[in-house]
Formats: sequence, structure tokens, C-alpha cells
Amino acid sequence: MKLRVVVIGANAAGAKAASKAKRMNPHAEVTLIERGNFISYGACGIPYFVSDTVADVKELMSTPVGVVRDAAFFNKVKGVHVITGTEVVSLDRQSRTVQLFEKESAKAFSLEYDRLVLATGSSPSLPPLKNRDLGNILTVKAIEDAELLKERAVTGKRACIVGGGLIGLETAEALRQKGLEVTIVEMRDQLLPGILDPEMASLVERHIRQNGVEVETSCRVAGFDGTGVVNKVLTERGEIPADVVVLAPGVTPNVKLAKEAGLEIGPTGAIAVDSRMGTSDPAIYACGDCCETTHLVTGKKVHVPLGSTANKQGRVAGINASGGEATFAGILGTSILRVFSVNAGKTGLTESEARAQGYDVETVLSPAPDKAHFFPGAKPIALKLVADRATGRILGLQAVGEGAVDKRVDAAAAAITFGATADQLSHLDLAYAPPYSAAMDNLIVAADILKNKLAGHARGISPRKVRQMLDDGDDFILLDVRSPAEHAEVGIEGATLIPLGALREKLESLPKDKEIVTFCKISLRGYEAQKILDAAGFRDVKFLDGGIMTWPYELRRGGGA
Amino acid sequence: MKLRVVVIGANAAGAKAASKAKRMNPHAEVTLIERGNFISYGACGIPYFVSDTVADVKELMSTPVGVVRDAAFFNKVKGVHVITGTEVVSLDRQSRTVQLFEKESAKAFSLEYDRLVLATGSSPSLPPLKNRDLGNILTVKAIEDAELLKERAVTGKRACIVGGGLIGLETAEALRQKGLEVTIVEMRDQLLPGILDPEMASLVERHIRQNGVEVETSCRVAGFDGTGVVNKVLTERGEIPADVVVLAPGVTPNVKLAKEAGLEIGPTGAIAVDSRMGTSDPAIYACGDCCETTHLVTGKKVHVPLGSTANKQGRVAGINASGGEATFAGILGTSILRVFSVNAGKTGLTESEARAQGYDVETVLSPAPDKAHFFPGAKPIALKLVADRATGRILGLQAVGEGAVDKRVDAAAAAITFGATADQLSHLDLAYAPPYSAAMDNLIVAADILKNKLAGHARGISPRKVRQMLDDGDDFILLDVRSPAEHAEVGIEGATLIPLGALREKLESLPKDKEIVTFCKISLRGYEAQKILDAAGFRDVKFLDGGIMTWPYELRRGGGA
Repeated sequence: MKLRVVVIGANAAGAKAASKAKRMNPHAEVTLIERGNFISYGACGIPYFVSDTVADVKELMSTPVGVVRDAAFFNKVKGVHVITGTEVVSLDRQSRTVQLFEKESAKAFSLEYDRLVLATGSSPSLPPLKNRDLGNILTVKAIEDAELLKERAVTGKRACIVGGGLIGLETAEALRQKGLEVTIVEMRDQLLPGILDPEMASLVERHIRQNGVEVETSCRVAGFDGTGVVNKVLTERGEIPADVVVLAPGVTPNVKLAKEAGLEIGPTGAIAVDSRMGTSDPAIYACGDCCETTHLVTGKKVHVPLGSTANKQGRVAGINASGGEATFAGILGTSILRVFSVNAGKTGLTESEARAQGYDVETVLSPAPDKAHFFPGAKPIALKLVADRATGRILGLQAVGEGAVDKRVDAAAAAITFGATADQLSHLDLAYAPPYSAAMDNLIVAADILKNKLAGHARGISPRKVRQMLDDGDDFILLDVRSPAEHAEVGIEGATLIPLGALREKLESLPKDKEIVTFCKISLRGYEAQKILDAAGFRDVKFLDGGIMTWPYELRRGGGA
Repeated sequence: MKLRVVVIGANAAGAKAASKAKRMNPHAEVTLIERGNFISYGACGIPYFVSDTVADVKELMSTPVGVVRDAAFFNKVKGVHVITGTEVVSLDRQSRTVQLFEKESAKAFSLEYDRLVLATGSSPSLPPLKNRDLGNILTVKAIEDAELLKERAVTGKRACIVGGGLIGLETAEALRQKGLEVTIVEMRDQLLPGILDPEMASLVERHIRQNGVEVETSCRVAGFDGTGVVNKVLTERGEIPADVVVLAPGVTPNVKLAKEAGLEIGPTGAIAVDSRMGTSDPAIYACGDCCETTHLVTGKKVHVPLGSTANKQGRVAGINASGGEATFAGILGTSILRVFSVNAGKTGLTESEARAQGYDVETVLSPAPDKAHFFPGAKPIALKLVADRATGRILGLQAVGEGAVDKRVDAAAAAITFGATADQLSHLDLAYAPPYSAAMDNLIVAADILKNKLAGHARGISPRKVRQMLDDGDDFILLDVRSPAEHAEVGIEGATLIPLGALREKLESLPKDKEIVTFCKISLRGYEAQKILDAAGFRDVKFLDGGIMTWPYELRRGGGA
């Protein structure tokens, strides 16, 4: 008898699982069930469709050579039988049967399986909001939404995005590019919570504000107002006029079917799976947004739904469901977005996440050009590395800037997967030529500073702490060691100038017992100044992490000569 | 007494070692000796200075904030005493003394050291060539050469580059951009030997020919002709007219001083060092182009001089010379270049290198867009992965294309450093959003194909082998499974068309016992076709590695409908 594999959900994970199962076991009968009308589309491309960056929605549903991945394609090319527009109503594990309901014909029927793969995805998770049902309040999860939103982008004037995460920011840019006034409302006290630490997020916030987007953080949405269609967003801090609202909150896994069938749900609320993507029922696998996975740094279960992970898990589930053997170890929560011309990404743990997990952390904030500084088109990026002080192990990297952020995130992701220490990261043999990086790549420089900090040679202080000391009127010296020209152009109010080259000669002019915070553009000269002062017997010298370039507060412009 | 550290050679490695030694041990007396007049310049930037991409040669010698890294800078900022224009004549290890000769004043003097760091660099390695002393025969190793070459680039008409390696290709582009006719002469049978396998190198060769550069491979230069200045290059295959010649051969380490002092020279001909960069004399360290290092894949000693490695080694040598403790494990031979608009890089071993080391290898050739295929500006890149068949361990990656090659090389370098297998590579949590990659990054796709090959599910055949079979008139079916439109536009002469979507219906039209080679644009559909034919009982089916996109031979244009 033929092995019957049924896959529920035909987006990234499900489509992959079905194709792979059939390819591995050509004699299996593979059926792919989808409640919507579209299968295997690139949901991540929706903001680009809204902004007209991608002209035709079909491109999101096509293979790289332009073949639309529809039911006929799956049937002919993949040998997979596809049923769309059909809801899975229930799952009987005893009889290995799923109950189906075809929506258009209102026909109920059932299907038996030998192996079942759940790829039921996730849904936006929203608290009950007043007047949620008004018109022009949209999400950006499905192709249908995208088309509606695109219509709105033409006729609307003011958009409000609820949620300052990846999708929220991408959508904000898309609508701004279409000429709308855009406000992002985020409940937490920063953009991109869970992805960036506050000082890194503030670099992104500054950039999107410069591009004309309003940002309201620490602001909870209570509901909406309007007649028929929305005309304002009600927040705890007042009203925001809006004729189109996009809900871009976090998502929750779709586990109703699994839960009702008695499958184990994990601590994250997603379907519990082992490394073979097997659920608590040996005949049932799960993959993609509906299931949890293991974080490779903490070893704990997490739910981080992403298209890239869905594909990998789908492949593993497909192989195992068709009788093969494959495992998936876990993820690092790697995330990235481009918004206007800034790139922001992370892999592993942020400082906040690491502290919450109980790590004693050391961090480094290192801005620098992304190519050889003399190479035209070099653009700055700021890296933040987080390490475990006890072992020197790298826990995470964040990267923000107009330059090639993704490259550093990917290299760090590979290194962190294997438990790299700061020393190992600093010695990676990365590709060097002037169009690609400095002789010492940003990642190498950051790792070197981290080593200096871990060894106690370098002592940094965070911008946040220095800002606090300035605000409190603390008695310390903020020492700018840049050139007079740099100092004149831009600076931090309250700083004293002694260029690094003159520091050895001017030691007498500084008090040895006072706290001194040195800084320069990016912190390397600040660190050299700290070493010179240390050697001369100064007792309390630190350098400002990240220098002027990642100072997230107001800078003095001009007038400092 | 103060620790006296003397560093010989003030380019990347030496300058780094001296600065680091002083920073780690501020009470040390650090002296940096350089025979030339310039210190710490970016030699890798020279081709960009020649092409006017970098306007001022000073930029190559400056810090990112524009401070020239000259003797005064090192003295004032780094606290390092610099002596330029001074040759080290000999080294007496007994008395720990170096004999110096200042060229301008013709003054001989000596200097005692407690710790010595050799950073004597490397020199172009050329066999004796007839009339080598003619004018306008230049190298691109020093700033002085760069200025001469730039002059020649203005007045010259025909340039000949001897050597088809990284520097040769970068210089060829620079001179072509200045309007010269350019011919590259390479003794080996391909460009970029030691960096790319032949089929990958041929993609680069095709690109630079399209940009108007002539390429002569398998061609040895015998000498030059001309009166006073060169006017032709004499090769074993005839003469090449040229009014400027650039010698860009491999380099050999400068070990004369070390050899004469009786220091151990390693099997590669470079100074032997341990992981602390220590030589056979406990008071002497070496770093940069003059010493050898360990290849992290083979564990064998290699000599791969690169600015990125020099900086890392210099740091380690500087720390150890000043009484600290640091180690450097080794390298992967990672290399990269941009020539015109193509990027080409590698890390780890090429297939040829791996076979020469005795590995039983499996390879995959995988071309695909570097971003989501629907994202504007996505450009193709071709990856070649090389793995050890016995363990599945990744031995190397090569990448060529107009897209973001460096990112994949760096991620692979990090993974290979830690001994990643194909399975581990395929599960890396790389950063995904449409502006950066497809949901399955090129590296993930390549690793997945590799896994299919290692498991025996996928059977590839190299373009070279298929070309041979076509040339020999072998009896096999070359099966194009693309769409009729794709087939009509471009193809391989002699191929039969059955689109993938029609293959399951047309199985009857194909003979089951004949050898069949399937292909598509990039080989994924080719692989699917192989699986369909396998399942239907066909006995000898393979797919063409890399498909049309990496077919290095002539393609049929049009007329195939």
C-alpha cells in the first residue's frame, strides 16, 4: 500500500514538506490542504508589493523563473495533490483521519493519513480593541490584505501602523513612499523590541523620523473611531487621525487543531516538537510558524516564526514523514530589515535578552565604515556584540547602518552556532579586499575590543550612563580626543578637547583622581586615550562606547572650536 | 629596566605589532624600523589609486578620520619610535642586536632588543626574464610603483599584465578604465589559479573579456624587448606589443635576514612560527607576509600572504612580544576580488586543492539570485561547495557573480572554521528578508543539494564532462526541462526539450536504458526531473551541475523554439 502523507497548510513550511516528502518517496501519495486560495506565496514580500517595489503580486507567488506556484504547478511538477479553499475542521488521531470542509461548495469530507504534517502557521495576536471591525483596518499577512492595502495607499492620506516590529516598519516605509503621512504606535518603550537593544533601536528610530515617519513609543492602542471606516486611532495618550490602519502586532501560533486533538503544546504556546519535527503523536509532524523550536544559545524552547526557518523545518518534516531521517537543531532568532536606507539585524541574544537569561554580560559598541575607508561608497555600520563574561562566548550580535549589515550578521550567526568565543570570532578568516571591508573587518575590530574589555584592558561606559551623569551634573571630565576640526564640527555639550596626538604632552593639565570619560568618533582613539592615561597613573578612566557615531542623544552642531 | 621591543617592517603586520606591544605594555620601549619611506599604507588599495577610484594616495596611508599614519603619528599617538629609510643589515641573536644602515646618510648603527618582531613582508617572485630592466616594467607592491603606474596609465596605450591572479586582474581593470588596451598573460591554464576551480574561473574570464580585456592563459613570458623602455612582451607563443608592463606574479616571503641569523624556515619557505607567532628563537616573533601559518582545514603549513591575516598576526606577535599571551590558530586561505562588476571569492579548499590533499570529494554548483528573486536589483551568483564525502564536512566554498558573493564567503568561512558539515551549513540561521536573500539563502540551497548528493538522492554531472560527451558524440539524451520560451531564447546545442510540467505525461517518449542528462536554468528543475525519471524506473539519469547559468561553453542563442 502507498504511504499516505497529508500536509495541512500550504505556505512556506507546508509546501516544502509536501514537495520534499514526494521527492524522497515518489510512491507516496502526498496531499496538501490549504484553507486560503493561494499557496506557497512570499508573505515577506507584501510590503514591497504595497510600495510598488514589486509590481505584480504574481511575482510573490512565482518560482525564480516566473512559473506561478499554484495547484496545477504542484500537481504537474511536484506530483503533489493540492486542495485549496478547504478548512481542516478536526483531526481524529485514533482513526488517522482529518475532517475537511470545502468552503465554496460547503462540502464536508474526510481524508485518511499514515503520516500527517501540521503547517498551520500563525495569526496576528491582538487584544480586543474597540471598533476593530471598522473599514480600512488591515493586516499584512495574506495576499488579499496586500491588495486592499495597496488600494488604501492610493486613496488614503494618513496611515497609522500599530506595532513597531519588522512588519510594522517595512509597511510604514511602503506607505510613506506612496506619499501618506505615517505614524507608528508601539506599546513598548522602543522600536523593534526583542530585536535590538534600546540604543541600537534609537539609531533606527532617528533614521525613520528623518524620513518623515512619526513614532509614538510607550503608547498602547485602545481602539478606533469612525463611521463605517476608521478615522482615528484611540490611544491611552490621545487620538491619532488615520484613514488607514495597519495592524502589525506579534503573532501567535495556530494550534487550535493540534490542541483539540490532544497534541502536546509547548511552554511557548506553540506545538511541541522534537528535533525530527515530531509531535507527541509519532504519526504527526509539525513545522513552520505553528510549532516551537530550540534556541541554540540558551537551549530553551522559543517561538520565532520566520520564512527561512519554516523552509528548513518543512524539509525535515517532509523527509521524516516520508520515511527518511533528518533533524533540525534550532535557531538563533536571526532577524533583519531594511527601512528606507538603513539596515538593522540581529542574531543570538540582545543584551536585554542575555541579562534576562541570567548571563553576566560584556558588550561592545563599534561603529566603522563597511568597506575600506578610502573606498568610494563605504557606509557606516554600528555593531553591538554581547558576550558571556565567564566564558568569553559570543551570545549575540546586533548591527545597524546604511552599509552591509547582513554580511556581519550572517558571519556571526555561523560563528555563534558553533559556540565561538570572542577570540575565535576575532580570528575568523573573512574575505578582504577594499570593495568589501577594511583589512580588519568590522566584526574582527568589534571582537578585538571585546577581548580587550574581557581582559580588563579596555573599560567602556555606555552612552546611556554618560547621558545620565551629564544630566545629574556629576563631577567628571568628558574628554574629546578628536582633532580640533572634528571637535568644531560636531560634539557632545560639556566636553573638553585634547586631541589624542597632544595628550601625552598635556597630561599635567588633567587631574589624576577625577573620573574621566574619553571619546572620539568611533571609540578607538577614545580607547587609546584611556590606555595613555592609565599608563600615566590616572585612576578612573573609561571610554564612551561607540563614540560620537552611536551617541543616541542630541549632538552639538558647530560652534565648538 | 624597560623592555626593549624592536619591530622590523612597518606595513600592516609590523605597524600593528608595534602599536599593540606599546598599548599592552606602556613601559616598554618600542621601535619600529622601515627600509622604505612610507609606513602602514594600504597596499591593497593601489589598483584603486591607479584607476582614480581613490583620488589621493594619502588616503591609502590615512586613518579613517584622515590622519596620515606617518612617523610623527606613530610617535605622538602610539608612543612608538619609528625609524624609516633604514635597512636592517644583520641580526645577531647572541647579543640580541640588529645592525642598521640608514640609506640617506649612509650611516651604520646598531640597536639592542629584548624582544624582536620580524615583519619583513614578501616580494614578487619572478624567474629571470630577458630585459627585465627596461623602462615601464612595473610592479604594484609599493606606493612609489603606484605613482609611476598612474603616470604610465595616462601616457600609455597598450598594457600587458603578467600574472592572472588577484592583483593582476585588479590592475587590468584599473588600466582598462583609464582607456588602455590590456592583455593578461597567465602561465597556468586558467585565471585565478589556486583561488578558483577551472569552471568558476571561466565565469570570471568570460566577464573580463566582455569588458574588453584580452586573456592569454597557458602562456609563459620569456622576457621583453624595447630600447630604453619596453615595447613588447616576449612569450613562448609570440610577441605582445605593450608600452607598459605590470608584473603581478605570486610573492615569496622575505626571509634573508631570518635565514642568515639561523632561524628555522618552514616547508613553505617562509619563517616557521608556532601559534604564538614565536620563531625558533624564544626572543623573536614573526608575523605577516614573511611567515607561514596553519591551514585550518588540512592542518598543514601554508604561506598565504594577505593584509587581513597580517593584522591579526601582528596583534598576536605584539601581545606576546610585550609579555602577554595570545595565539593565532590559522587561516582558510579566504580570498576575494572585484573585477569590473563581477565578484569572485573563495574560502577553504577548491576541488582541485582538496583532491590534491587526497580527499574523496563531493561538489555542488548552484547558481541563483542573491536576493529574493522578486526583489529589484537581485543579481545572480554561482556557489560551488566542496565537501569530504566520508564525513560530509565542508572543505571549501567558491562564489562568483555580480551579486553579494562576499556575504556567502564570510558565512562559509565562519562555518568551515568550526568544521561544519553539509547538514549544519544547511541549517544556519542566516538573516532573511527580501532585500538580502531568498527565504532559503544561496548557501542553504547549495548545502541542501550537497546533502542530496552525499545521500545518493541527487546525481550531478559536471559541465566539463557533458561538453566532452557532446564533443565525442556519445549516445545520450541531453534533456532540457525548462519552458518552451526559455528553451527558445538560449540553450545547449543538441538538447531535447520536455518541460518539467509535461515530463510525467511524456515518460513514454524516452528510452529507459539510455543515459539521460537533465538540465534547466540553475539545476533545481533538472534535479526534480532526475527524481521523476528515477521513480519511473529510468536507470541512468543525472542532472547538469549548475544548469545553463554556469555552463562555461558557448550557448545557442535563439532559434531553438
